[in-house]
Amino acid sequence: MEQLWTGFLLLSLLPMMSCVADAGRPYFLRPRTLGEFSTLNREKSFLQSSQYEYETKYFTQRLDHFSFKNHKNSTFQQRYLINDKYWLGAERMGPIFYYCGNEGYIDWFAVNTGFMWDIAPQFGALLVFPEHRYYGESMPYGSQSMAYKDGDSLSYLTAEQALADFATLIVDLKKNLSAEACPVVLFGGSYGGMLAAWMRLKYPHIAIGALASSAPILQFEDIVPSDTFYNLVSNDFKRESENCFKVIQQSWKALETYGERDEGLQNLSKKFRMCRDLNSTDEIEDWLNSAYSNLAMVDYPYPASFLMPLPAYPIKEVCKVIDSFSNGTDVLDRIFAGVSVYYNYTGEEKCFDVNDDPHGENGWNWQACTEMVMPMSSNPESSIFPQFTFDIESYTKNCLNMFGVEPRPHWITTEFGGQDIKRVLKNYGSNIIFSNGLLDPWSGGGVLQNISNSIVALVTELGAHHLDLRAATENDPLWLVEQRNAEMKIINKWMNEYYQDKGIYTFEI
Amino acid sequence: MEQLWTGFLLLSLLPMMSCVADAGRPYFLRPRTLGEFSTLNREKSFLQSSQYEYETKYFTQRLDHFSFKNHKNSTFQQRYLINDKYWLGAERMGPIFYYCGNEGYIDWFAVNTGFMWDIAPQFGALLVFPEHRYYGESMPYGSQSMAYKDGDSLSYLTAEQALADFATLIVDLKKNLSAEACPVVLFGGSYGGMLAAWMRLKYPHIAIGALASSAPILQFEDIVPSDTFYNLVSNDFKRESENCFKVIQQSWKALETYGERDEGLQNLSKKFRMCRDLNSTDEIEDWLNSAYSNLAMVDYPYPASFLMPLPAYPIKEVCKVIDSFSNGTDVLDRIFAGVSVYYNYTGEEKCFDVNDDPHGENGWNWQACTEMVMPMSSNPESSIFPQFTFDIESYTKNCLNMFGVEPRPHWITTEFGGQDIKRVLKNYGSNIIFSNGLLDPWSGGGVLQNISNSIVALVTELGAHHLDLRAATENDPLWLVEQRNAEMKIINKWMNEYYQDKGIYTFEI
Repeated sequence: MEQLWTGFLLLSLLPMMSCVADAGRPYFLRPRTLGEFSTLNREKSFLQSSQYEYETKYFTQRLDHFSFKNHKNSTFQQRYLINDKYWLGAERMGPIFYYCGNEGYIDWFAVNTGFMWDIAPQFGALLVFPEHRYYGESMPYGSQSMAYKDGDSLSYLTAEQALADFATLIVDLKKNLSAEACPVVLFGGSYGGMLAAWMRLKYPHIAIGALASSAPILQFEDIVPSDTFYNLVSNDFKRESENCFKVIQQSWKALETYGERDEGLQNLSKKFRMCRDLNSTDEIEDWLNSAYSNLAMVDYPYPASFLMPLPAYPIKEVCKVIDSFSNGTDVLDRIFAGVSVYYNYTGEEKCFDVNDDPHGENGWNWQACTEMVMPMSSNPESSIFPQFTFDIESYTKNCLNMFGVEPRPHWITTEFGGQDIKRVLKNYGSNIIFSNGLLDPWSGGGVLQNISNSIVALVTELGAHHLDLRAATENDPLWLVEQRNAEMKIINKWMNEYYQDKGIYTFEI
Repeated sequence: MEQLWTGFLLLSLLPMMSCVADAGRPYFLRPRTLGEFSTLNREKSFLQSSQYEYETKYFTQRLDHFSFKNHKNSTFQQRYLINDKYWLGAERMGPIFYYCGNEGYIDWFAVNTGFMWDIAPQFGALLVFPEHRYYGESMPYGSQSMAYKDGDSLSYLTAEQALADFATLIVDLKKNLSAEACPVVLFGGSYGGMLAAWMRLKYPHIAIGALASSAPILQFEDIVPSDTFYNLVSNDFKRESENCFKVIQQSWKALETYGERDEGLQNLSKKFRMCRDLNSTDEIEDWLNSAYSNLAMVDYPYPASFLMPLPAYPIKEVCKVIDSFSNGTDVLDRIFAGVSVYYNYTGEEKCFDVNDDPHGENGWNWQACTEMVMPMSSNPESSIFPQFTFDIESYTKNCLNMFGVEPRPHWITTEFGGQDIKRVLKNYGSNIIFSNGLLDPWSGGGVLQNISNSIVALVTELGAHHLDLRAATENDPLWLVEQRNAEMKIINKWMNEYYQDKGIYTFEI
């Protein structure tokens, strides 16, 4: 592995790796989970048990908000979900809770953002979930295959266009509902949290505030050290067990040695119960990396089935397994048993599939190859991972190979800022909550300190990736309940300020 | 005249009319002054007497910042002017004064923005004047004729792209000068003032504050009444002379009656000393409208040659002439004598030219036909103008005819806000000065009240269109000197806050 990429995926930010295969031709290994989610989404099985009801609607959206070019396909149908069951209505200026859809099916995000559903009745809120362009059903050019045809068709898949979609839709929707005076509150997690924060910053006239959960808006350029993410993943293992940390740290060398032997790849494939033979050790490294990174993101305090069905604090369980072997045991066997907690907690998997579809329909690869250049490296001393160094040249080369597109690594900070953020926003902007759980490796690129009275950081030591946006459960620890209560109070404050400005009324939730 | 349009032009905002000719085919009458400025710019005669020195440079700019489309002409050369004579330098964090170029040649704006040159030595500022895309020499597609070829080639002429140009250029420039830590202050007048204000709002990480002079950011949708502009023009005449106001008010009927007679147009052409015969009374109405509106904009307290060589408070002079005739005199003769103060103050014009080039190379027509939809109407009771009603349908029809493009009348407020601005920005944003002179008819669409402690309005009762940005003269009235001093103090405050945040030093100008 010469180069480590990081990409978001489906509410969870998943690391994406770019490897250089033996022949020197760069290729991408897709994060493990995309396949699962796509299937889930396509089959709608994940919705079968959903208690949430909504209407599905479509809005004719401009493909390009920032030019007046006459495209052959100059509009597309943006899907959005809406529920007005709890809404106070336009006359009473009932609020609109607006979820900034991220890189996936919006119905999946809607049912995985239980917090909005939980609090809507108290706030009397209209719930609206717009889908992000080029994801789910919101495909330009008539179909996913046409939208993902090439770099040209993908060229309008950008965060700025998505934000303009959100702005245009809500303005139109409010007009149609005669709800122009209703305050809009933004919600989003992960990439969607970035969009929520950026939308409040760029469109303060559209929304009165934003809850940006696990939004790594500082994971660009050199704002945070490039090894932050993988160090944080590693710390999650170290805090459970120093030994576990070391075993994983040592495993990469063992893997390579194993792989280089005669029939090494076949034997590795067997050892890791792969459904088909591996093409390179890179594949298995990527598969392991995904497991560790994902485990850190979903290191939730109760059993959950977010990326995978997992026990509470799954890293603790992984390490328990790894540590349960005697030190003489083959390190690869220990590792395999450990990641099986992630890949096979139910025990139902007969074999595992490292899906090597080079990129296919993964919109995040495109976004990572254009705007979302998040430099990532890893340090074998301070992390469980082997040495990776971020190198924009090979990164660029990969993107040119994949899509014929050249990344713009400085564009996000030019367009949205990030550098020197405390100074910039200290006397500028208002009403953003940046919530982070410190177990989440993406928290390293998040805003972890209050910037001003109204741009605040809510940090939980034991929280993971946008845990606060999930539905309340009976198993929620007190600190999580308190975090959500704090969020509700702040949102209530934004609303009351708004109502006071409008000379109407205020209410306490 | 069925429809009144309004367009910006060359630092001054000039009203643009759309008329429907006899055959029912809509056409545009170009504001009178474009020709003059274009000539001036081409011949550089206006620069011969300039005391300002600068280097001219070019920057390779993306044609489309918001997509990753591979265009055949995906970049263009943006011109910018730079002067570092007064700059404290990067090490001492000398400020950068950055002018947001508007719809014309940047060298013309640079020499007409004497305020920046006047104060640069005191602030130790680097002066940078980037040219607006599609104006002056900053032409995409290699040439003006190719850039203005059709709606497709013009499609990237938008305010958002221009702001992204400004952001990209200054980030790159600061990097090249190792001046990343130097604070940037934005300046702009008229459309450039709108860009300066919007840039501070959208790119707070790029600039610490903005002086937005005569920036009618509220002249959209129904934020201000659509007859505001022409009522303000008319008030400027009324305050000088009630009689003058009435004479002009009556003249339109006389014009039409005259024009409808046998050989009326020929006689009108003679009466108004046209170089060629008029095609319709619309042409002369437009010519008169331009004179009145321009006079209101440049109703400066001292003799100036901004749009035309004019005496101090030129409307007073126009009305003096109109009032000097006995009441029995033909109203058209009185009008002609009056507007001759505007069109022929030097007395050197032998005849006048109503230039009827339908649109040609006027980029503002494109901008008015796309984003910059400023509804304008006029009321024959409260104004000196005949009845015009803004009608988006005929407006759209004209734009489809001219460029094949459909205006987006709600886009500017969606993208930049404007509605309910006091509430939106009260607890949001900072460091913007909105300066306006109340004689300027564009002040009606400006921000005339303080929004917060640091988003402030500086209003002068007797000021006209971005008078404060012009170079100081010996004839400046005290209130103008005071206005500029207030601006300098505020800018100094922004800088000191910045330096304090950086833990460096502060200074008093």
